[in-house]
Amino acid sequence: MSALVGKQGVVVRNIPRADEALIKQLGKLGVATVHEAQGRKGLFSSAIRPIQQGASISGTAVTVMVPPGDNWMFHVAVEQCRPGDILVVAPSSPCTDGYFGDLLATSLQARGVAGLIIDAGVRDSHTLRQMGFHVWSRAISAQGTVKEVLGSVNLPLLCASQLINPGDVVIADDDGVVVVRHDEVEPVAATAQKRADLEEQKRLRLASGELGLDIYNMRQRLADKGLHYVDSLAELEA
Amino acid sequence: MSALVGKQGVVVRNIPRADEALIKQLGKLGVATVHEAQGRKGLFSSAIRPIQQGASISGTAVTVMVPPGDNWMFHVAVEQCRPGDILVVAPSSPCTDGYFGDLLATSLQARGVAGLIIDAGVRDSHTLRQMGFHVWSRAISAQGTVKEVLGSVNLPLLCASQLINPGDVVIADDDGVVVVRHDEVEPVAATAQKRADLEEQKRLRLASGELGLDIYNMRQRLADKGLHYVDSLAELEA
Amino acid sequence: MSALVGKQGVVVRNIPRADEALIKQLGKLGVATVHEAQGRKGLFSSAIRPIQQGASISGTAVTVMVPPGDNWMFHVAVEQCRPGDILVVAPSSPCTDGYFGDLLATSLQARGVAGLIIDAGVRDSHTLRQMGFHVWSRAISAQGTVKEVLGSVNLPLLCASQLINPGDVVIADDDGVVVVRHDEVEPVAATAQKRADLEEQKRLRLASGELGLDIYNMRQRLADKGLHYVDSLAELEA
Amino acid sequence: MSALVGKQGVVVRNIPRADEALIKQLGKLGVATVHEAQGRKGLFSSAIRPIQQGASISGTAVTVMVPPGDNWMFHVAVEQCRPGDILVVAPSSPCTDGYFGDLLATSLQARGVAGLIIDAGVRDSHTLRQMGFHVWSRAISAQGTVKEVLGSVNLPLLCASQLINPGDVVIADDDGVVVVRHDEVEPVAATAQKRADLEEQKRLRLASGELGLDIYNMRQRLADKGLHYVDSLAELEA
Amino acid sequence: MSALVGKQGVVVRNIPRADEALIKQLGKLGVATVHEAQGRKGLFSSAIRPIQQGASISGTAVTVMVPPGDNWMFHVAVEQCRPGDILVVAPSSPCTDGYFGDLLATSLQARGVAGLIIDAGVRDSHTLRQMGFHVWSRAISAQGTVKEVLGSVNLPLLCASQLINPGDVVIADDDGVVVVRHDEVEPVAATAQKRADLEEQKRLRLASGELGLDIYNMRQRLADKGLHYVDSLAELEA
Amino acid sequence: MSALVGKQGVVVRNIPRADEALIKQLGKLGVATVHEAQGRKGLFSSAIRPIQQGASISGTAVTVMVPPGDNWMFHVAVEQCRPGDILVVAPSSPCTDGYFGDLLATSLQARGVAGLIIDAGVRDSHTLRQMGFHVWSRAISAQGTVKEVLGSVNLPLLCASQLINPGDVVIADDDGVVVVRHDEVEPVAATAQKRADLEEQKRLRLASGELGLDIYNMRQRLADKGLHYVDSLAELEA
Repeated sequence: MSALVGKQGVVVRNIPRADEALIKQLGKLGVATVHEAQGRKGLFSSAIRPIQQGASISGTAVTVMVPPGDNWMFHVAVEQCRPGDILVVAPSSPCTDGYFGDLLATSLQARGVAGLIIDAGVRDSHTLRQMGFHVWSRAISAQGTVKEVLGSVNLPLLCASQLINPGDVVIADDDGVVVVRHDEVEPVAATAQKRADLEEQKRLRLASGELGLDIYNMRQRLADKGLHYVDSLAELEA
Repeated sequence: MSALVGKQGVVVRNIPRADEALIKQLGKLGVATVHEAQGRKGLFSSAIRPIQQGASISGTAVTVMVPPGDNWMFHVAVEQCRPGDILVVAPSSPCTDGYFGDLLATSLQARGVAGLIIDAGVRDSHTLRQMGFHVWSRAISAQGTVKEVLGSVNLPLLCASQLINPGDVVIADDDGVVVVRHDEVEPVAATAQKRADLEEQKRLRLASGELGLDIYNMRQRLADKGLHYVDSLAELEA
Repeated sequence: MSALVGKQGVVVRNIPRADEALIKQLGKLGVATVHEAQGRKGLFSSAIRPIQQGASISGTAVTVMVPPGDNWMFHVAVEQCRPGDILVVAPSSPCTDGYFGDLLATSLQARGVAGLIIDAGVRDSHTLRQMGFHVWSRAISAQGTVKEVLGSVNLPLLCASQLINPGDVVIADDDGVVVVRHDEVEPVAATAQKRADLEEQKRLRLASGELGLDIYNMRQRLADKGLHYVDSLAELEA
Repeated sequence: MSALVGKQGVVVRNIPRADEALIKQLGKLGVATVHEAQGRKGLFSSAIRPIQQGASISGTAVTVMVPPGDNWMFHVAVEQCRPGDILVVAPSSPCTDGYFGDLLATSLQARGVAGLIIDAGVRDSHTLRQMGFHVWSRAISAQGTVKEVLGSVNLPLLCASQLINPGDVVIADDDGVVVVRHDEVEPVAATAQKRADLEEQKRLRLASGELGLDIYNMRQRLADKGLHYVDSLAELEA
Repeated sequence: MSALVGKQGVVVRNIPRADEALIKQLGKLGVATVHEAQGRKGLFSSAIRPIQQGASISGTAVTVMVPPGDNWMFHVAVEQCRPGDILVVAPSSPCTDGYFGDLLATSLQARGVAGLIIDAGVRDSHTLRQMGFHVWSRAISAQGTVKEVLGSVNLPLLCASQLINPGDVVIADDDGVVVVRHDEVEPVAATAQKRADLEEQKRLRLASGELGLDIYNMRQRLADKGLHYVDSLAELEA
Repeated sequence: MSALVGKQGVVVRNIPRADEALIKQLGKLGVATVHEAQGRKGLFSSAIRPIQQGASISGTAVTVMVPPGDNWMFHVAVEQCRPGDILVVAPSSPCTDGYFGDLLATSLQARGVAGLIIDAGVRDSHTLRQMGFHVWSRAISAQGTVKEVLGSVNLPLLCASQLINPGDVVIADDDGVVVVRHDEVEPVAATAQKRADLEEQKRLRLASGELGLDIYNMRQRLADKGLHYVDSLAELEA
């Protein structure tokens, strides 16, 4: 499959989509928990930041590769989207131009698309926030783009240090973006839910003043590694 | 005129100012639309970011060149400002010190200045937001500056990858900052208004679910460039 | 004392703590004023940014050195904290992983800790904002960390271009973070208060339209340095 | 296969290796030509730079995922290498520590390994150059690493914005690094060779003073796009 | 003239060229001296670095604006070049693709062009060094570009934080790049030569052990500013 | 002592200097080995890079704090230098201007100074290399500086993420820069020498083909941590 990464001029019409309830559950669990639950993989580069605060989305990735400074493929991609999808876009070489604005957002919103993840720039950021169309991007820039060169839609995509297959699930919130492979959605959701439940218990104990040192039985292991305590800096300088 | 860029120790007292109504109109149209309307030029580097959200200003540029770590020229510049002006400031070599804070903002507000664009740092950011004095800057930094070396006021200025002439109009919003030449204000405002009106019609069609592919007649040109559709990834791998 | 910078595997139990009223006073005066009052020193790199807006804290620094990608020492540090303390954390080599999240924040909040300054990443940023636990960090990243290697607690620490001794006072607001040496807290607070009072008078004069050029008697000195005024650009080009 | 990206704690012993003659041919053709020949894909981020000048290598990728600040897996990887292999290494989260130095290079050289590509730092850079062990890295840093946490060897790896499968061929020279899929080595080498031969002919014509505008028949297409010529700037300003 | 900055689709055939002897003289004086001689202006961003060491060029600027990821205009520009010219190129929005390689260098060399300054990337860097074609660029990248969208040749250009008019003289060496306005070439060369001659005398005195403090009579002014000497750190801590 | 960090307007005349033979020994051992020998501390940020290749120096630090864009203190510092010293310079806020060039280098060379470490820019880089005056800097920039504001000489200095006391020993080579506290020079040199001797033995064994896995007895510990081997990727996918 990896031979398709970077291929140009192709649109794939049908992609797998995971169970809607599981997708929603992953969204509620959030990026940090899902990332942990799948063994600390799938995290997008932290250079991809939300343009709004407090938003949280999850959905099926429709992948789009775009040339530098050319947003033609967005129009091709819109047609491939279904309600609940998320557009995941990367330029074929680094570019921070403003590929995406309120008109494309209007078109995607009309098709029920949940949001946009893009390793490049967007514009009309104020309007996008007002519309409630959620975006995670590398930059905000008004720089316009052209419509001259082909990219691709729904091929495997390298985006912000991750490999995204069309049909994978992406989750995005204030912490960033994480991808879950299509065939791992169910086990990851289960593991993440268990982790979240356990954390809830820990939170209560910590809130009551109990120490992580004791809850997690760390004292002995720390001592074994050689940690020692002194009463004051003066003691060390002596 | 370009021989004056970078000259030190001069203040120009009189600069041209565009029609107030046109300046306001450009502000309403916004950075992205104005940038497009004038042929995609005039955009400041996207490293210049608003310190507040949802603010939008437009006004006549009073240009200020400052030495690194030296904010003396701000006081000289204040005297040259009139209601509706915007201070556009760049250091003569890269610097992120906090050149500007709430006292200077108070002084500018007293003269009716609309805001500050600076390719360097500002401080007292919380107070600036509370005062409603709008700022676009490269950094927020409390680092203080001195008052020892001259710069210039109202000479042509290179700021954030753009050339600004005193009297040019600058527009700033959540998307960034754009400059319109003084003698292009009228045609750019007209073109931008037309563009905005057209976009409004497009927005309605897109909101109703019509596709950009059809509205803009893109299908044939995409096919001519070689775009082809397949039903699934499996088809490509075969 | 500087020989202790970078030492690993030690926890110091007792650190000096400044007078609570003075600490609060410094917090009210704010980062920019305190930085000026102590002769423009002590400012953290402006790469350390608040993850919330409008928050302002001051407290005694509990210092923590952590290995790259390893947050074990946080649990050790929590036990050393008292109400009003602030955790100041730096990795031993550059790292933007998400060392800190809502569980650790819960534990610190239970001990009355005012906030966290970290030259690395944090996660659960939305929850941290909801909890009102204030954080200044280099990055937001969901990337998890391990618990395998020792660091240190309450040794002198190099963090974001500053030297922090345990027991120093740190002040953080929207402008960034500044440190005041433990034995300079009293004189710095006094100087900063005077400066703030003086600024208040200046603000009133500036708000009334008086110019800084006149308030600060700058005109003669500017002329001596060679500043000259011309009526228009045309005059210069002639 | 993509589900294996990011998995920890596994070493794969056997990987495919391409034909030696083809690997050498790709190395001679160079990064830019190979990148073009395979449709402009496979290029590593330009942040990965050679630590020496004028070196050029090609070989089979042995992939290594390492934790931040932990180089334990290098020792595991050495054992899996054969003559002509190239170690391709990426940390599981961004890190610029000096993972690799002259001792590991000595060990790899003893096994006939051609060089190292690493999305992190190396040290002993002077000795590495003297040994003739070629390295492409993100940083040079003396910062030491630990041996506490597992990574993986010979799983698919995301490195510097590319997906590398163990057994893929990597080519590195002064221009950077490119990867060729194992099953595309033969066609890419053929296409690249043709391209190089064609370029040689073009070079002769260009060297003789013929213009690209004429060789590539660009004049008409440029005119169709609207390019126009004027005699002087004055003509435009009129 | 500034209204032409950023205009697309135009080629200007005739540009002014300065006296050849003066251009050579500026090249010998070097970037740092010329920059000082014209009042510390005209310096390109230090992000533009030589791809070779020890090279030094000066020549008339032929300016080229290119779209992101599109190098079509290079072929148009070659035709406008004469012996001794230097190509000065900037993308219309930030881009680090490899716009330029050995074929274009061959073509330029055939026309006697001295070198290339580009606020973007180049490739075939090893061959360029072997050919002795000198380049200053923001990046080295093998990333290919397309030929689809127009830019401009010989319009005023914003490149690496400077405004370049076609016909201005650019000087480049290991320190970076500086531009001298066409109509300032003669006075700047004269001032720079005087400065260089004076420096030569200073060098002899400094080499003999005389101190700058005495040569430049700095001691009194330093004392007036408040500089004081102590015998040891202990004295300060007392 | 830390209260002196950042103090302005003071020059300390006498500083401790370590034994010359030990300083030379540390220089020969090199940055990476010394850094390890003192417990992985003292390393300057890897953003400080040599402007030459293959140079290696060690010496006593004469510390200099300079304002942004102001190099006046260099002249003050020269007088305080003795043969074998190294100038260690940091600006009081981030700045990449060219503070230092061949005239100052001539003056320092006349006093027997071994080199310069500066967290800012230098110029005349070609001449500096020709003179054999060795420099490690953050940038190369021709940007000139003024002489208006005081800094300090021989106070404790924060430079490139390290605390340097005047009299500490700094070692610099192609890997970067490390500082050794004045009172730790002897034990660090002894430990580093032992480490280097041990490494020499390891190098011989590794060169003969022995594996680090066996030399360092890693196999059991890796297995205990859970590392497992598979024969092929296919085995994992099954």
